[in-house]
Amino acid sequence: MKIVTFGEIMLRLQPPHYQRFTQAQSFDAHFGGGEANVAASLALLNHHACFVSRLPSHEIGQSALNSLRSLGIDTHYVVRGGERLGIYYIEKGASQRPSQVIYDRAYSSFSQSLSSDYDWNAIFEGADWFHFTGITPSLGENLISILTEALEIAKEKNLTVSCDLNYRKKLWSKAKAYDVMHSLMPYVDVLIANEEDAQDVFDIKAEFSNANQGKLNHESYINVAKELTNRYHFKQVAITLRTSMSASENQWAGLLYVNHQSYFSPQYHMSIIDRVGGGDSFVAGLIHSSLKNSDFQTRINFAVASSCLKHSIEGDINLSTEDEINRLMSGDGSGRVQR
Amino acid sequence: MKIVTFGEIMLRLQPPHYQRFTQAQSFDAHFGGGEANVAASLALLNHHACFVSRLPSHEIGQSALNSLRSLGIDTHYVVRGGERLGIYYIEKGASQRPSQVIYDRAYSSFSQSLSSDYDWNAIFEGADWFHFTGITPSLGENLISILTEALEIAKEKNLTVSCDLNYRKKLWSKAKAYDVMHSLMPYVDVLIANEEDAQDVFDIKAEFSNANQGKLNHESYINVAKELTNRYHFKQVAITLRTSMSASENQWAGLLYVNHQSYFSPQYHMSIIDRVGGGDSFVAGLIHSSLKNSDFQTRINFAVASSCLKHSIEGDINLSTEDEINRLMSGDGSGRVQR
Amino acid sequence: MKIVTFGEIMLRLQPPHYQRFTQAQSFDAHFGGGEANVAASLALLNHHACFVSRLPSHEIGQSALNSLRSLGIDTHYVVRGGERLGIYYIEKGASQRPSQVIYDRAYSSFSQSLSSDYDWNAIFEGADWFHFTGITPSLGENLISILTEALEIAKEKNLTVSCDLNYRKKLWSKAKAYDVMHSLMPYVDVLIANEEDAQDVFDIKAEFSNANQGKLNHESYINVAKELTNRYHFKQVAITLRTSMSASENQWAGLLYVNHQSYFSPQYHMSIIDRVGGGDSFVAGLIHSSLKNSDFQTRINFAVASSCLKHSIEGDINLSTEDEINRLMSGDGSGRVQR
Amino acid sequence: MKIVTFGEIMLRLQPPHYQRFTQAQSFDAHFGGGEANVAASLALLNHHACFVSRLPSHEIGQSALNSLRSLGIDTHYVVRGGERLGIYYIEKGASQRPSQVIYDRAYSSFSQSLSSDYDWNAIFEGADWFHFTGITPSLGENLISILTEALEIAKEKNLTVSCDLNYRKKLWSKAKAYDVMHSLMPYVDVLIANEEDAQDVFDIKAEFSNANQGKLNHESYINVAKELTNRYHFKQVAITLRTSMSASENQWAGLLYVNHQSYFSPQYHMSIIDRVGGGDSFVAGLIHSSLKNSDFQTRINFAVASSCLKHSIEGDINLSTEDEINRLMSGDGSGRVQR
Amino acid sequence: MKIVTFGEIMLRLQPPHYQRFTQAQSFDAHFGGGEANVAASLALLNHHACFVSRLPSHEIGQSALNSLRSLGIDTHYVVRGGERLGIYYIEKGASQRPSQVIYDRAYSSFSQSLSSDYDWNAIFEGADWFHFTGITPSLGENLISILTEALEIAKEKNLTVSCDLNYRKKLWSKAKAYDVMHSLMPYVDVLIANEEDAQDVFDIKAEFSNANQGKLNHESYINVAKELTNRYHFKQVAITLRTSMSASENQWAGLLYVNHQSYFSPQYHMSIIDRVGGGDSFVAGLIHSSLKNSDFQTRINFAVASSCLKHSIEGDINLSTEDEINRLMSGDGSGRVQR
Amino acid sequence: MKIVTFGEIMLRLQPPHYQRFTQAQSFDAHFGGGEANVAASLALLNHHACFVSRLPSHEIGQSALNSLRSLGIDTHYVVRGGERLGIYYIEKGASQRPSQVIYDRAYSSFSQSLSSDYDWNAIFEGADWFHFTGITPSLGENLISILTEALEIAKEKNLTVSCDLNYRKKLWSKAKAYDVMHSLMPYVDVLIANEEDAQDVFDIKAEFSNANQGKLNHESYINVAKELTNRYHFKQVAITLRTSMSASENQWAGLLYVNHQSYFSPQYHMSIIDRVGGGDSFVAGLIHSSLKNSDFQTRINFAVASSCLKHSIEGDINLSTEDEINRLMSGDGSGRVQR
Repeated sequence: MKIVTFGEIMLRLQPPHYQRFTQAQSFDAHFGGGEANVAASLALLNHHACFVSRLPSHEIGQSALNSLRSLGIDTHYVVRGGERLGIYYIEKGASQRPSQVIYDRAYSSFSQSLSSDYDWNAIFEGADWFHFTGITPSLGENLISILTEALEIAKEKNLTVSCDLNYRKKLWSKAKAYDVMHSLMPYVDVLIANEEDAQDVFDIKAEFSNANQGKLNHESYINVAKELTNRYHFKQVAITLRTSMSASENQWAGLLYVNHQSYFSPQYHMSIIDRVGGGDSFVAGLIHSSLKNSDFQTRINFAVASSCLKHSIEGDINLSTEDEINRLMSGDGSGRVQR
Repeated sequence: MKIVTFGEIMLRLQPPHYQRFTQAQSFDAHFGGGEANVAASLALLNHHACFVSRLPSHEIGQSALNSLRSLGIDTHYVVRGGERLGIYYIEKGASQRPSQVIYDRAYSSFSQSLSSDYDWNAIFEGADWFHFTGITPSLGENLISILTEALEIAKEKNLTVSCDLNYRKKLWSKAKAYDVMHSLMPYVDVLIANEEDAQDVFDIKAEFSNANQGKLNHESYINVAKELTNRYHFKQVAITLRTSMSASENQWAGLLYVNHQSYFSPQYHMSIIDRVGGGDSFVAGLIHSSLKNSDFQTRINFAVASSCLKHSIEGDINLSTEDEINRLMSGDGSGRVQR
Repeated sequence: MKIVTFGEIMLRLQPPHYQRFTQAQSFDAHFGGGEANVAASLALLNHHACFVSRLPSHEIGQSALNSLRSLGIDTHYVVRGGERLGIYYIEKGASQRPSQVIYDRAYSSFSQSLSSDYDWNAIFEGADWFHFTGITPSLGENLISILTEALEIAKEKNLTVSCDLNYRKKLWSKAKAYDVMHSLMPYVDVLIANEEDAQDVFDIKAEFSNANQGKLNHESYINVAKELTNRYHFKQVAITLRTSMSASENQWAGLLYVNHQSYFSPQYHMSIIDRVGGGDSFVAGLIHSSLKNSDFQTRINFAVASSCLKHSIEGDINLSTEDEINRLMSGDGSGRVQR
Repeated sequence: MKIVTFGEIMLRLQPPHYQRFTQAQSFDAHFGGGEANVAASLALLNHHACFVSRLPSHEIGQSALNSLRSLGIDTHYVVRGGERLGIYYIEKGASQRPSQVIYDRAYSSFSQSLSSDYDWNAIFEGADWFHFTGITPSLGENLISILTEALEIAKEKNLTVSCDLNYRKKLWSKAKAYDVMHSLMPYVDVLIANEEDAQDVFDIKAEFSNANQGKLNHESYINVAKELTNRYHFKQVAITLRTSMSASENQWAGLLYVNHQSYFSPQYHMSIIDRVGGGDSFVAGLIHSSLKNSDFQTRINFAVASSCLKHSIEGDINLSTEDEINRLMSGDGSGRVQR
Repeated sequence: MKIVTFGEIMLRLQPPHYQRFTQAQSFDAHFGGGEANVAASLALLNHHACFVSRLPSHEIGQSALNSLRSLGIDTHYVVRGGERLGIYYIEKGASQRPSQVIYDRAYSSFSQSLSSDYDWNAIFEGADWFHFTGITPSLGENLISILTEALEIAKEKNLTVSCDLNYRKKLWSKAKAYDVMHSLMPYVDVLIANEEDAQDVFDIKAEFSNANQGKLNHESYINVAKELTNRYHFKQVAITLRTSMSASENQWAGLLYVNHQSYFSPQYHMSIIDRVGGGDSFVAGLIHSSLKNSDFQTRINFAVASSCLKHSIEGDINLSTEDEINRLMSGDGSGRVQR
Repeated sequence: MKIVTFGEIMLRLQPPHYQRFTQAQSFDAHFGGGEANVAASLALLNHHACFVSRLPSHEIGQSALNSLRSLGIDTHYVVRGGERLGIYYIEKGASQRPSQVIYDRAYSSFSQSLSSDYDWNAIFEGADWFHFTGITPSLGENLISILTEALEIAKEKNLTVSCDLNYRKKLWSKAKAYDVMHSLMPYVDVLIANEEDAQDVFDIKAEFSNANQGKLNHESYINVAKELTNRYHFKQVAITLRTSMSASENQWAGLLYVNHQSYFSPQYHMSIIDRVGGGDSFVAGLIHSSLKNSDFQTRINFAVASSCLKHSIEGDINLSTEDEINRLMSGDGSGRVQR
């Protein structure tokens, strides 16, 4: 199946191990971004994953492109132009010290995309699904308009459209995010959010005070999904449920709400290697099992198992195979050596 | 005391840190193998540990030899010949993601050993103990015959013989393993196994369904040991008891069954740095305390404390001293800085 | 505010990651020492932190100086002379394997300080606080006499004086420590200790048997503080409370005893990256909040939150900002990515 | 233009920097092999480079595949199967110490290729050029027969065929090499060799005693090319001319012999970073400028400039762009910073 | 002596060793920039070196500040503000492959400096010398006006003013550079240039064709210096003379032209470790020996010896001591171990 | 053949690559020392090399011991005791920047050796040769007396005795060196020196002014050897001849003077990876070829070829095989890949 994602890929610069920014004499380099991460997971799950973006023509842009190609992503519609690759610096947290992100993504090649860079009719040729996140329209009016055009053509061509709200307060205000995302929701079939996104963007609040208490309140999450569905008539709403004991230990689960029914996944207790991209791998897992027409309980279980494994992998990308995800779903989280 | 072990030592190639195989731009190199690991531990416990094997004459073989020598192992009976050093690639697991092993050991110098490579009468001169594992006879008919010859001479010379079942399904079938190991058991005084080995090789099954549930069923393990003893008249049977909560957290204990009596060690909750070689360090601890004529409870406690420490050490080898093991046995598992 | 600390800074050599000493082909290099660590924290909390010491004039000494300068520490009174920079080798523990320290600090430039090296009247010009630890006087009679001179001048100039007992059995005997520290206590306004220090130096024992059991006995710690106060009339006594489950997991809290009142901080459960310097960052937090005239409960909470974060940071130095410490105090220990 | 190459790609394991094999605690990992290297260079020169091979299905094989994909190579005809990826260990030389190679490539997936693995009619669809080296037929009778089939179909489809003699004495005898290569030469349009290959395989000897003397004897090389052409009627013969002052300093030039005319390139004096793959990048440069229909002098100049740059790049692959090669050809070998 | 420099400091990201950009999985991080490099050298030569700049307030900006402080640079007038630290990516060249630089410095905090950020009267208090380069005014009109204000105040206060032309074609056109630099030259006492700068900015051309031929034409360089002096009445003109045999081997010398007299330094043949910052260390050497009132021959010799050593040091900064430079000047370039 | 060497082995701490001391965030760790290096080379040349020394019992001492064992050195007479392992910090030079050494070896375990630590009658049992250097007696009166005892017993037992003058001005004065070495020379059969040693210790000066001019004056060196022989009646005198063009490029040759005859080796032009231990590998080469009874020309050629290769190897130890040395002697210094 062919899935198209559209967004920015950035250079991720990270001090080695648990070094703080001011200790770094070098930075580990990865490439990632919400929509690229989803494409990567889907390519690894043996789909035709087509990532659409814009990269500078210099060698740092080339490195980003090479990283996409190495994963088997279709990069035919990655255009080259502009001056810089967006950067995000990340310092890995531990214990009570949270991870820190410093964005240096303004003026990136992607953020200065032109409408003429993307031929959506060609891009969507033969495609089944289109995925985007709330980050792309936050990067500028040009991207809102490009994305809107893409969504119109996607709907014309009967693609399923999914959106991960992915609200970033450093990129736009809640008010602006509401205005824009509100206008885009009618194109969306499948909405993915975490409970903070829903509140930040749509002011839909789960009815409990503290996300860090280690207990999930099922009823509240169902209400968030229900309210979202009532407003925008999504076919599916998926919510990721993270309980953060510390930067080193999290719990992770998910809810799929479809046809007025709620499906909760099992909850995993995770020792965290890298939590960046956890949400993206959840999205990819959901798209994959949806395209396979799995039953709804399996879909949310697969999405959560997939993204649970992501948390044990360095970098933005979920380098898990379908076989590994299935083994985890079927109960083996014991970490025995496979030999 | 002089202990002889006989087996293969391999080059272990591991992506750094928690990288997956496909992320590796380099591999950390260690050398290890069940029987070499036992010899290493015993050398570190100040025994005369003589490791018998066959290595290619090129520089990669030389590196393996140097690693053995650096630990104080007697390498006088390591012969040189053949073309390649066996390799195993290992990717370290974390949280719900298990470690992965890819074997590339076929056609190794050791697997192509000739009977004439080993002069067992000379090798066993002055020796007290001979140890082997189920891996060695799985590597070919030549090794079954060489090992059988060694065992005959060992028994003639009144050595104590120990065997770690160490069943590897990628190396031989259960049926073949049964046939061969069945024929070798009459030479064995001390058998070491985990519950899976006993089931895979001898079809002796602990009476409970799931090894990963975090609870040990003492009665079942005693039954396994009893059944093994009944069949082959071992003087001692030792069973390692691992409970795997995740790739990052395990519990670890052991059972020694001797003279119809069962001795269980305390159980340790471990944060895992490297679990490869855990069983081998258990064997070495057991041999060491047996040679010291410790009481049976102390033997299993020492073996388990020793191998518990192994799980906190990178590589195959248990670089723990007798003093450190004794400190852990006497109750200090608190991790306070020793200064 | 200007704070002066006086002590030794050493080169810290550590095998990378969890390697044992005998596995190291390289050593990570940090610079640290109790009093330097306190100065570093205070500089990072935007104080004028003046570190007084003696370093060899060669380039290894220069590296230590550069590391202090990079943190914004005032190094105007670091004198240069002598032959060697003290070294301590440290091997990081994990799980049941404790960290190991090997000291190689004898004959260091600092330990051979002369009285003429330090002009305390100039050093204390404009200063508000003087801090030292029990390590400095343990290094030789010259340092006892230099320190005593410093304390006299500090009191003349009405500085607040704090002392961290920091008993090191490899540096001096308990009897010698008692004699010296007993003679220095009259100069001290604020005493910091852990329960082992109080027992080792002053034979004041908390009334319970085992520090590693995971439960704090509040009454006992209060009694230690009370007894110390009774003897030496400290204005404040602060005690750090560590419960060591393993080298990887600790609990951490603190007690401030002042005006016959006890203030206990919350207790944190920590996944440990590096526990060296934990006590020093506690001291710095306490000095900082004292200089800010925070209420007593806030002082101990700040000191403990500050040092809790230290445990998540590699090296001796607590590279936490006031903002980060406040966030932890106000309840966010969840490790969510800050973006 | 579409170029097809057929051969083995191996894992290359190299001690870091100038470490000798016995010093290595880790190995840098690259992937390379003569025909893969040629494909990589051609992909970087913006051709449709299709590499045909066989890789094991495990993750080490996958890593090799990913490395090919990252460079933009068409891997559609890389089949998966067999057990192992061939390995070569390489130790980098310096000064008077030559580089060392230890092959561990026997029993590789590629060497056990089946005729049914490759559908040459499909592979050559739309192709202009087919390139192979003497290594492929040295790996076994199966590969001789597969290659012969490929050559027959290539000629049917009017592809230009090039062959790099690449004699490896560890892989086959001179006599066997002669027999096989002799039978394959009729299919070849463009032959690439160095003077040692020509002597080892075809017993054609350049008329001077010592390749390391730093002086090139043009007449002798022309005679070699002439003799090769006389025997096999090649359209072009290209010979690389290396003068080795030491492992750190080499001179490098080339000769193209075509239509009874000789074209010598300029000679470069190189400080060597990595000489592996130098010949392969020469081949790729020659194919590229042939496909561009450059004049003959330009062809040899481009091939030599291209491969000169390779010697300054780590790994097997020549990561040079056409623009960089042209700059070097047009005289800028000065190493000024491009900013 | 107090020297003030004003300019941008950037994060320099470099693939390790000789890796090309597309091979990098990590980047070595340094901080540098022409004026910061000069300040660093002067601080290491025991001057009061005050670097004036603007850095973002986030932790990457803090790291740049810390690097300056570690070297003993006075950072009192480094203001904090703006969003990003400028970046330059650099790939180290070797042999015929030149180093590559990719600038990503647009929109940096420094480039968006406000006039109100700098209080030049305070900054120049007690100062003897002011140094700037042609890079600063190339970054925008705001910086031209800030710099002009600084120069006016510097001249009022009788500081010596030096300028390194440092033309960068990626930052501004030759025409714009001419206009601006022409207007700034009247403030300048000491001009530093290489022969390309003089041509690019002032169209003053040395009368020989090729800078890479390995031969210096003294007369031509004197003419350049004479022409510059004629036009702008500089007290001193210094010209660096680089002959580039390859990226690995350069020759290096300098000319000082003062009072119609020419002073040429000896020429050094260098094996290059890192040539970035070579010109800056030359400037610092010249300022240092000028402030010491050395005779003119010694000045140019010191400047060239100083910058010769820089080429053997990684990073932008010349970490050489006065003693080392003097040893080289007095003839010891033999590289014998100092022990 | 059994060769005994007696001396100190130290921890060598080196900033990675070409970093200066103040840039180091880690140190590469090697173990070395003149006499240990000689033993290592001889073990690698398949002799029974017995190294006699004293190491602290802690784990850093153990690491030194393991490094010796890994090379196959007989460590039976390495005693354990004392507090510290001597350290030397080394910064690698390049181009005009010489390597720097900072010694931190005072108070080492070895320097505090007791006479009772060494049982020379046992040590020399079966030995053929005893080697020491001028460093050992420079470390204290205890070592002079221990060494003298060793020499007496060695002569009683008819061992050949060799001495490398190895004068270190940081360890003792020339006057003291003269007194001691003068008293030891009567025991010595084979003296090794470079021309500086001969001058520093015995005031025998080669008759030319500058060792760095690149030209060897054969007559002068012969005169030095002759004068040494005249004074002390050595059987052989060997002199190493280094010409230092820069820290990166040296020339290297040697002279053997025996029976009034002079034998000069060829001279090698070397690109230097690591020159530490160059003299020691020369000694080992000389001992080896002497023990093999090679003719005198072959002896000096072997010694020089052996030590030439050392300069291409990181660390103190010459990891070259006899086969490699022979290949270099027979003319292959071309650096062609051995495959």
